Amino acid sequence: MILMPTENTHATVSVTVIGLGAMGRALAGAFLAAGHPTTVWNRSPGKGDDLVARGAVRAATAEEGVRAGELTVVCVVDHEAVRAVLAPLADALRGRVLVNLTSDTPERARETAAWAAERSVTYLDGSVMVPTPMIGTPEALFFHYGSQEGFERYEPTLKALGDRHVFVGTDPGLAAVYDLSVLDFFYGSISGLVHGYALATAEGVKAADIAPYVRDLVEILPPIADSTAAGIDAGSYPGGEANLAMMAAGVDHILRAARSRGLDVSQLEAVKATADRAVARGHGADDWASTVEAVRGA
Amino acid sequence: MILMPTENTHATVSVTVIGLGAMGRALAGAFLAAGHPTTVWNRSPGKGDDLVARGAVRAATAEEGVRAGELTVVCVVDHEAVRAVLAPLADALRGRVLVNLTSDTPERARETAAWAAERSVTYLDGSVMVPTPMIGTPEALFFHYGSQEGFERYEPTLKALGDRHVFVGTDPGLAAVYDLSVLDFFYGSISGLVHGYALATAEGVKAADIAPYVRDLVEILPPIADSTAAGIDAGSYPGGEANLAMMAAGVDHILRAARSRGLDVSQLEAVKATADRAVARGHGADDWASTVEAVRGA
Ligand SMILES: NC(=O)c1ccc[n+]([C@@H]2O[C@H](COP(=O)([O-])OP(=O)(O)OC[C@H]3O[C@@H](n4cnc5c(N)ncnc54)[C@H](OP(=O)(O)O)[C@@H]3O)[C@@H](O)[C@H]2O)c1
Ligand SMILES: NC(=O)c1ccc[n+]([C@@H]2O[C@H](COP(=O)([O-])OP(=O)(O)OC[C@H]3O[C@@H](n4cnc5c(N)ncnc54)[C@H](OP(=O)(O)O)[C@@H]3O)[C@@H](O)[C@H]2O)c1
Repeated sequence: MILMPTENTHATVSVTVIGLGAMGRALAGAFLAAGHPTTVWNRSPGKGDDLVARGAVRAATAEEGVRAGELTVVCVVDHEAVRAVLAPLADALRGRVLVNLTSDTPERARETAAWAAERSVTYLDGSVMVPTPMIGTPEALFFHYGSQEGFERYEPTLKALGDRHVFVGTDPGLAAVYDLSVLDFFYGSISGLVHGYALATAEGVKAADIAPYVRDLVEILPPIADSTAAGIDAGSYPGGEANLAMMAAGVDHILRAARSRGLDVSQLEAVKATADRAVARGHGADDWASTVEAVRGA
Repeated sequence: MILMPTENTHATVSVTVIGLGAMGRALAGAFLAAGHPTTVWNRSPGKGDDLVARGAVRAATAEEGVRAGELTVVCVVDHEAVRAVLAPLADALRGRVLVNLTSDTPERARETAAWAAERSVTYLDGSVMVPTPMIGTPEALFFHYGSQEGFERYEPTLKALGDRHVFVGTDPGLAAVYDLSVLDFFYGSISGLVHGYALATAEGVKAADIAPYVRDLVEILPPIADSTAAGIDAGSYPGGEANLAMMAAGVDHILRAARSRGLDVSQLEAVKATADRAVARGHGADDWASTVEAVRGA
């Protein structure tokens, strides 16, 4: 039987964390810090000694781990790994709540959700949206979808990981959609970042000399995130203050400068090709948001 | 003869702005707002009527414009356009200071600088690092390189455009290196942004529902900009808290989700290929900064 926790008993909800990679360790550490009896398990040995020193119990097997905790949290590299770990644990998990904080595609999330449903496992699929040092802080953000009842029951427990838990909905896969949409921006950004530093250092300028100006540029991104979203939702992209033709020329400058320094330019070529396709469709005087039509109409 | 301005006379330095695109108009507007007698010229008619209404003088020809102002500022789409405008103006420009706020490659900037030097034109190459609404505000950032004397003489005049004018050095092309390195990050970011919104909307989620979480993610970028720069400058990329193999798996999730929704995935494929090459070189346990080695060793 699953304990129905009350406000008072939440710190006593016992938790099992499966997967002690960088993120799993951060999650287990935050549960421990909040006073939860915490059991940990990892496929290969040698991880989580610090957690054990802080009071975590190391389970000999994943099954032993699941049976030791009221709530099971799994965080491994992808859903293939989730399924590899969980496949033999259907009996142990039956009737329990499983929170899967492993990132993957919406399709995979839906498959894992179906697997859990067939085995009467109450399932929550979640995404961790912050790096490990932010776990346990008020700013830490998580998306969840799946069992609303499971979410409501354990949200107070999950608060040990951070204050911001967004229940996206019951539609399987939606947390992954939120996760991947934001990560799409993230990976574009950090790839451009490294490439920009490669360009600077190719010219003898230190990356650290460029970093302060990258930070400045970061400050103009929030309003761009909003205005670009508004333009895409409305299908209207007025480019009066910065037009796509001018920006495509800008991308071309970076591309040519990088190419002549022997750098890989495949990302820039892809960006340029998308902008060019949008210009060819008549969006030269529109703003960058109009490239969405070239992304969709590939 | 060029007037040597003093603190007191700076508001009387007359300025000519060549090019009345979105940025040229913003620049001319800021000079006007600061009280500078301002002459404007644009290749095609119909632009800048608002500036004339606010007191700007419209020159009939670019040459007339250059002769009317003590300081000439040119801001057109690229250096090809700069050269097209300036080629017949060598006589008018001789002995004057020319500030070129047009973005292009370091190579082009160096060519334009050489062109100016051969014609005894005191030349400053600059980059505008903010969007038009920020022109004239304290936060507005500009890079300059070229004539240090020209920069020092007219920095007080240029302050009409914003408070932050960074003189990068006298090496021709260096302003463009700073400019393009930062823009490399910018275009990677906004391309990923639009792509992420395309992914969300393909799943029926509004872009505006994702935007707040993009803004959250933007907040983690400044420390990443610093730590990535430090790693690249040191050639050391410890990935203890977020390793490249895990992140490459993350990129692959986005890529597969986007592909199965019919979106163009060329940018993601390029990002993934770079990460994979870095993993193949042994950087799987390092952090994302290690992809710089795959960018360089293309
Ligand atoms: N690190 C971050 O900053 C961050 C941020 C947001 C989200 N995330 C997400 O968090 C999840 C975990 O990331 P991480 O940084 O902790 O990755 P990590 O440090 O690379 O750890 C990967 C974990 O997955 C386990 N694993 C891999 N294949 C397995 C298999 N077939 N069977 C069982 N276990 C397997 C590993 O076990 P072994 O030790 O036995 O290899 C390890 O515990 C990912 O979905 C990631 O997208 C991470
Ligand atoms: N807008 C921004 O947010 C922003 C931000 C930072 C930097 N910048 C930089 O500022 C510069 C100008 O950008 P913008 O936004 O003003 O571009 P824009 O609105 O597209 O205007 C382009 C300008 O270039 C002129 N031009 C183009 N080809 C020409 C030629 N062959 N001869 C003479 N003039 C020519 C155009 O004249 P016509 O009217 O006759 O076509 C127009 O005045 C670019 O280097 C850009 O990278 C812009």
